[in-house]
Amino acid sequence: MNNVIETILNHRSIRHFEDKPLTEEQIKTIVSCAQAAATSSFIQAYSIIGVKDPVKKKKLAELAGNQEYVEKNGHFFVFCADLYRHTIIGEKEEKNLEASLESTEKFMVALIDTALAAQNAVIAAESLGLGICYIGGIRNNLEEVKKVLAIPERVIPLFGLAIGYPATITGQKPRLPIEHVYHEDEYEQDKEVYLQQLNDYNEIIANYYQQRTDGIRKDRWTEQMAAMLAKQNRMYMKDYIQKNKLTIR
Amino acid sequence: MNNVIETILNHRSIRHFEDKPLTEEQIKTIVSCAQAAATSSFIQAYSIIGVKDPVKKKKLAELAGNQEYVEKNGHFFVFCADLYRHTIIGEKEEKNLEASLESTEKFMVALIDTALAAQNAVIAAESLGLGICYIGGIRNNLEEVKKVLAIPERVIPLFGLAIGYPATITGQKPRLPIEHVYHEDEYEQDKEVYLQQLNDYNEIIANYYQQRTDGIRKDRWTEQMAAMLAKQNRMYMKDYIQKNKLTIR
Repeated sequence: MNNVIETILNHRSIRHFEDKPLTEEQIKTIVSCAQAAATSSFIQAYSIIGVKDPVKKKKLAELAGNQEYVEKNGHFFVFCADLYRHTIIGEKEEKNLEASLESTEKFMVALIDTALAAQNAVIAAESLGLGICYIGGIRNNLEEVKKVLAIPERVIPLFGLAIGYPATITGQKPRLPIEHVYHEDEYEQDKEVYLQQLNDYNEIIANYYQQRTDGIRKDRWTEQMAAMLAKQNRMYMKDYIQKNKLTIR
Repeated sequence: MNNVIETILNHRSIRHFEDKPLTEEQIKTIVSCAQAAATSSFIQAYSIIGVKDPVKKKKLAELAGNQEYVEKNGHFFVFCADLYRHTIIGEKEEKNLEASLESTEKFMVALIDTALAAQNAVIAAESLGLGICYIGGIRNNLEEVKKVLAIPERVIPLFGLAIGYPATITGQKPRLPIEHVYHEDEYEQDKEVYLQQLNDYNEIIANYYQQRTDGIRKDRWTEQMAAMLAKQNRMYMKDYIQKNKLTIR
């Protein structure tokens, strides 16, 4: 195993950081690594906002559901899917790009582009001894987040990324069994086998929680997922995105 | 610079591979690295299909717009956003998860999860001396791709990933200037400055093409983007995704 793979496999989310800001050089390295990711047809459909202003950080932490590590970290990045740039390009080149820019396909492209860039940033940060936590919570209230960050139309803040020096190292949650996630030549599986894999994984997860909480928690994974998904969360998203002139067609 | 960052910054798409398959161990390492990526609320909303069958590979290459490197590579992966697993979980746990599973928010979560996993796979592969190419072309005809790979509902093949030993090393296309992509505290920029940055970048790209094609090509980036986006591409996506019971609400 080389140390790139070691870095990748050693990932865990960090939610408690030392009070030590990243240097400008670290920030630049992380952003350059993000930009080195592949991009669909060279579209580069994302922007990254680094938030330093303590007032803005505090506000974002509240909006994300009072997550303290949004405020307290080495640096807070907001990764945005961005088709505003291409809206400007349409004006500049005097071409009507509306249909493309409003299409579901290009929205997907922008999301994928942004996520690929972010994961490069993550691996780069972790290789520097830093810890990271993705913050989906900024999608709780995108209207407010957009105001805080002065974001134009056709730009969607997708997630935050808190980076910093880890103050507490957390454990790694075991992932789904590889044979449940990775299939050869076809997806369709024997349903019995599929359910058995989920049951086996439930036991692994129950044991993991039991050991980490001295027997207090013993949730199974499918139980946890069903409880999470039974709640309706961010159901305003469809309207919000259309209002921002994305995924209309 | 450490060698993780070196690996990341050294990325380029490879479209010509040696005729040498990946070993089972390499495949397992790559998939394990994919699974080590962060996942929103532990949802793990993706599956990966490794395609070995030469008939299927040939068919996928055709569907992706006759891209030869879909057929000829060390291994071909298809990364799928997957909420079928959670549909089964709903049945198993006897909970009604419809609203969540059909929501735009969870569709976005599944897309992001899949892309984060894929980018980990990419960095792992590149660290092993392999080259990669993302294949968005599999979205040209998802109905057919789903048939080839026997994919159930609520699973969307998002992109392919061709991996193998590079036969030809390509150049690296310069990215947008960092100050155009990375903003501090707010997005909104002076529009003059914004346009100037695009003009400066246009020159960089024109020079890049000119040097690489002995003066034959000299496209500016904004021109390239406008031409690409003026064409309507995969406009069936909205209907297709809704038909697959995703992004309905």
